[in-house]
Amino acid sequence: VTLESPRLPTFADVLDAQQQLSGIVRRTPLLSHEYLDAAAGGRVFVKAECLQRTGSFKIRGAYNRLSRLTAEQRITGVVAFSSGNHAQGVALAASLVGIQAVIVMPSDAPASKIEATRAFGAEVVLYDRATESREAVAAGIADERGALIVPPFDDPYVIAGQGTVGLELVQQLEELGLRPDVVLAAASGGGLVAGISLALGELAPDARIFAVEPALHDDHAQSLAAGEPVEVRPETSSFCDALLAPRPGDLTFAINRTRLAGALGVSDPEVAEAMAFAFRHLKVVLEPGGAVTLAAILKGRIGLAGGVGVVVASGGNVDPDVYAAAIQTGQ
Amino acid sequence: VTLESPRLPTFADVLDAQQQLSGIVRRTPLLSHEYLDAAAGGRVFVKAECLQRTGSFKIRGAYNRLSRLTAEQRITGVVAFSSGNHAQGVALAASLVGIQAVIVMPSDAPASKIEATRAFGAEVVLYDRATESREAVAAGIADERGALIVPPFDDPYVIAGQGTVGLELVQQLEELGLRPDVVLAAASGGGLVAGISLALGELAPDARIFAVEPALHDDHAQSLAAGEPVEVRPETSSFCDALLAPRPGDLTFAINRTRLAGALGVSDPEVAEAMAFAFRHLKVVLEPGGAVTLAAILKGRIGLAGGVGVVVASGGNVDPDVYAAAIQTGQ
Repeated sequence: VTLESPRLPTFADVLDAQQQLSGIVRRTPLLSHEYLDAAAGGRVFVKAECLQRTGSFKIRGAYNRLSRLTAEQRITGVVAFSSGNHAQGVALAASLVGIQAVIVMPSDAPASKIEATRAFGAEVVLYDRATESREAVAAGIADERGALIVPPFDDPYVIAGQGTVGLELVQQLEELGLRPDVVLAAASGGGLVAGISLALGELAPDARIFAVEPALHDDHAQSLAAGEPVEVRPETSSFCDALLAPRPGDLTFAINRTRLAGALGVSDPEVAEAMAFAFRHLKVVLEPGGAVTLAAILKGRIGLAGGVGVVVASGGNVDPDVYAAAIQTGQ
Repeated sequence: VTLESPRLPTFADVLDAQQQLSGIVRRTPLLSHEYLDAAAGGRVFVKAECLQRTGSFKIRGAYNRLSRLTAEQRITGVVAFSSGNHAQGVALAASLVGIQAVIVMPSDAPASKIEATRAFGAEVVLYDRATESREAVAAGIADERGALIVPPFDDPYVIAGQGTVGLELVQQLEELGLRPDVVLAAASGGGLVAGISLALGELAPDARIFAVEPALHDDHAQSLAAGEPVEVRPETSSFCDALLAPRPGDLTFAINRTRLAGALGVSDPEVAEAMAFAFRHLKVVLEPGGAVTLAAILKGRIGLAGGVGVVVASGGNVDPDVYAAAIQTGQ
């Protein structure tokens, strides 16, 4: 059973999601540092979604989706597949809504993400990334239990929920008398950056929005060049475990294709350096996938020319050993 | 030359400091997590001063002090001694006010704190903690240059500046419709907890305020028991480098003696565990001294009995190797 909602979400859906999420998600702060301003040649604000409930933005889309289920759908519960952040988002959302959730996770996902997902009350089913398809495992469970599959990005409610990050950052800048000129958001399936694009298309239509991804896993750059979703070949790896979807989603790319100013790539060492920067100067914990946007700014992938830039730091769920290595070597 | 301002600060001084600091310091967020609420049996809010400029609350008192200098005092500049956080606070405040600062730091202070102090434009003079007295080194420089010594805690403007943490947390709780029942703040010389006591004495007189310190460096507990400042003997050590002042200040203790509900002690392993908790669940970087209050809550040193508690997480300036060890072992 899959959720039937193939239409593209709109700005109105993002506004509606913000209503739905009121009292559920946190309004995460904008952080700043003189060194970032200097690196980018403008004013930089870090939208710290690592401080969001579950340690990433994913609770926004997950709750917006799960809170819309029908009475029948609530009874059979939901199934999701995720390497970790969507897993935690769905697990917490399910617990808040009061339904059962089964999460299909790769057996090599960060231990902290697996533990946290279980701690939110979800049932975790592990699969072998090398020999099994997560879609097939999830579909098997869904069929068996009559449960609904909650997609990690290619769903209008999920995209609209993630888009509330865009609404918030515009509102927070407004309180400072500012408007965004450039916004950077990490892209795996592209749901976050698509949602932000919907919000900014209406509220800050002149802002340029970039997807940021691992340089060796550049399906967004390839897809934007091709004009259609392209799957990365050969399968490449990166320690940005949250950003390894093999291709953009169909719905997300239909939005991103027309709205993004481009896609920027960063290397794993650059990401480690950004994690170390956040440790040393911002005092927030970023996971690899949550630090790609900061890396793009620190490495000058995009200049601000005196303008205002917002980098979304999308998550902070990282195992201690990976983090320790990053902050000790990445400086 | 020492600053002459021996009178005890009052609530009015704290209000005045908040005016003075407007636009200079950040209103740091209150963080929360279900696990903390469960551990304390109430609602816990973490006042995240690690997200303050310079990575600790010390900029508050330092700026409030330096911005009050006379025209003559500005010319000769200031001298301060500090293991790190006051150093950075004075260095940034001096740069904002436009005066010269010399900071006397122990040669074994965390490298990150020494570097950051230099990066703010201050001149750093290192001394050997084993063979030299920091007071004597600072006094020598002050005499030579005619510069003023800025004390780390025993000064009315410094205490009033730190007290703005107390004003803010009461105001932030008010916005949530809450009042504080218990407040925990780390104590080295006692300036932060004294300032908070001044603010809460007026705004939340029923709240119980506790100093938290390393269990083996318990000069506040000993002093409260004796009714006068007691120096810890023998010299004890702790990895809470920010909390090693040998005895409470005279001004700070004159306030704390009558206002504190008590002093709580935590061990270094308990502090490492709290740092790991903040890494894993709150996604903020805490230094050892910044995590003692969280450790006290997690270890049940104080219960909330259904009430509202605020723990001030006072700083996040820690070397990567110390941090890596804490998050890898402290869980």
